[in-house]
Order: sequence, then C-alpha cells, then structure tokens
Amino acid sequence: MRIQDYRSLVRFSDEKMTKVNLYESAKMFADLYCLKPGQEQKVHSHENEDKVYFVLEGRPTATVGESTYQLEAGESCAAPAGEPHGVRNDSEENAALLVMMAPHPRPPGS
Amino acid sequence: MRIQDYRSLVRFSDEKMTKVNLYESAKMFADLYCLKPGQEQKVHSHENEDKVYFVLEGRPTATVGESTYQLEAGESCAAPAGEPHGVRNDSEENAALLVMMAPHPRPPGS
Repeated sequence: MRIQDYRSLVRFSDEKMTKVNLYESAKMFADLYCLKPGQEQKVHSHENEDKVYFVLEGRPTATVGESTYQLEAGESCAAPAGEPHGVRNDSEENAALLVMMAPHPRPPGS
Repeated sequence: MRIQDYRSLVRFSDEKMTKVNLYESAKMFADLYCLKPGQEQKVHSHENEDKVYFVLEGRPTATVGESTYQLEAGESCAAPAGEPHGVRNDSEENAALLVMMAPHPRPPGS
C-alpha cells in the first residue's frame, strides 16, 4: 500500500499553479492543486468528466457555471461533465486543493 | 454551485460507520466516512471500481491488499479495482475520511 501525506507533497511554484498526482488510472485521478497568490486554472470544461474540488489549505476561489465563491479549508464543490469550472487564488496565502476527476480525461499510458 | 463544508456534515452514529455523500453521478462518488472508535467497513473488493481514501480527522486504519496501516489526517491511499480494502477505527477518537470511488458502483437512479 502506498501511503501519501499531502503535506509532504504540496509544491508551490513561482511560475504557475502546480499539480501533484496522488492516484490515477483510466477510471479517475486524484491530484493536489497548489496555487500561490494570483495563480489560477482558467475556466474550462470537460465534455465527459466530472470534477470535485476539496479545499485543504487557504482560500481559493472556485467558479462552476455562473457561480464564483471563495472557499475555505474543508469546503468542497463539484463540476459535472460539461459545466465550465476553474479555480484561482485571489487571497494572500497559498492554497491547496484535492481535486478528483472521473473518468480520467487522459488515461495513463494512452 | 453547491458548497459543502465537511465539518458541518460529519455525523457519527453509535450504531455503525456513517456515510455522508458529497457528490455522486454515474461516473463517481465522493463520500465522508465517519467512524467512531471500534467501527469499521469490512474488507471487501469491487471488480470494476477504484477507491481512494483521504483522511480528514483521526487515526483510521486502512487495509489494501495484504497491507494494513494506521493513517493520520492528510494521508491517503488507494485501492485499485479488484484489490481487497477496508477501513476501521482502532483508535480512541472519532475518524473521518473523504472517500472517492470511480465509477459509481450503484449509479444514482439505477
């Protein structure tokens, strides 16, 4: 069994939002998204995949459809397939989210 | 957008481990598993679904395949399809996990 502590894996880059994979298969992925202040993943959508955001640290701002909210640690939201979504860090502290997507849009080995 | 704070959703029952759904579709589910001391989800397996455990609170003990470890908040592990897995709370404090599975073994509406 591979045990991973997210606190030892989060990695913040001055350049752009960082993704750290925790688990992936053709069925799903679970990533850490690490955003320094001012960084973002622009609003986009996936035709066939659902995504769930779960905030681990900080105050990231999520957009799903027409709604945009600043979240805090312990809060989650979801973007069903086809729904535009994105996340940015408008706060002054680092933000880390657990992001799950199913199925995997680019399965490993594909 | 539906925002959910897991801390207001966790629910511990004297009777058995409690599951609280955060999101579900045919593609996946994200649940909270809430275990009082001594409670468990017995080791089982799913032929076609992957599961990821992410510990939010407490010290739950996870089994995947032949391995069993006591985890702590921030730690995660995964059980690919076909791999026996389960979780129990051998500690003296409540434990809460975020559990993701894909695809959904019993899709809503099925």
